[in-house]
Amino acid sequence: MICYDLPASPNARRVRIFIAEKGLEIPTVAVDMAKGENKTAEYLAKNSLGKMPLLELDDGTFISESHAICRYLEEIHPEPPLMGTSPVERAQVEMWNRRIELEILLPLLNVFIHTHEMWKGVHTQIPEWGDICREKTLTSLAWLDGEIAGRDYIANDTYTIADITAQCAIVMGKAVGIRVPEELENVSAWFARVAARPTARA
Amino acid sequence: MICYDLPASPNARRVRIFIAEKGLEIPTVAVDMAKGENKTAEYLAKNSLGKMPLLELDDGTFISESHAICRYLEEIHPEPPLMGTSPVERAQVEMWNRRIELEILLPLLNVFIHTHEMWKGVHTQIPEWGDICREKTLTSLAWLDGEIAGRDYIANDTYTIADITAQCAIVMGKAVGIRVPEELENVSAWFARVAARPTARA
Repeated sequence: MICYDLPASPNARRVRIFIAEKGLEIPTVAVDMAKGENKTAEYLAKNSLGKMPLLELDDGTFISESHAICRYLEEIHPEPPLMGTSPVERAQVEMWNRRIELEILLPLLNVFIHTHEMWKGVHTQIPEWGDICREKTLTSLAWLDGEIAGRDYIANDTYTIADITAQCAIVMGKAVGIRVPEELENVSAWFARVAARPTARA
Repeated sequence: MICYDLPASPNARRVRIFIAEKGLEIPTVAVDMAKGENKTAEYLAKNSLGKMPLLELDDGTFISESHAICRYLEEIHPEPPLMGTSPVERAQVEMWNRRIELEILLPLLNVFIHTHEMWKGVHTQIPEWGDICREKTLTSLAWLDGEIAGRDYIANDTYTIADITAQCAIVMGKAVGIRVPEELENVSAWFARVAARPTARA
């Protein structure tokens, strides 16, 4: 297997942490987006959307989309489980992962795309939309704080992919000046907990 | 089980079609968003985000997020399979489902929220952002047309959840005047194929 990686991307980081938590060693190839390496005919033949991360299997099959890659790895390397261990648990981990994606990661990505210097000239920026997404992110973090009161991790009492998605989102938030407000004690304690894991900087 | 439903929602429709394809009969309760029924304390206790669809299990467990609900139903009622039948196939179906969500459904939802009368006063509308998403949707449909050349369904040769997501997105597109351009022959033929299924109006 080969994993095509984009070092600074929160989505690629999700997959890297997942791989590290599984204790797997998968060779990675960094694709330099700034140099347009993701838009070459060669790369587009692997993933027509030109996105990373992308997993290439030994038989030449390609799997894109972070969560789909993680699902595949979870199935072929079930230990330690990061997506739940029963139908109900798996559904709830997926529910939480999607909630984090839709309520936090996606708005944050929009703040980044619509307000960060890096995207000037690359994408039409609508700062007003970026501001709405910034406010939405903060509202969502406050909502999450209430939701996780009394538990150590986001979906249940063990570390799962929902935590990985949330921690990668929060790391990206720093790039646009969004940090977990101190008064959100549950999210702050949770973030300290996950950031201390040996895999957090994968 | 009970399914809390929002009849006009593309996400709720995804779940209804999924249930119909499985041949299941799950009692549904329509939640009237216009009347604020999704913001009552009673409903928020079931889903703190106030969203539909939502599945209530017999033991009182709640599962929200369309794809998480479908995953649960797929696990407890595996036939007919709608999410793939091997680790690689399941990953590729999920990859395609997410591609459709991110490249087509999500931009379309933004067109709807930012330009449709229905959302005036409910959500801050940024028509310029709606226009960018409209253009993005059309670009994505053209991309999809190339991708599915030579096959009957989106992820592989059988009907899957990726088709369900795409058909629900396209049905919603009509509400904002986005239809599959005639020259996209593959997507047009595919849509005629899925729209003819007995479950399409579930």
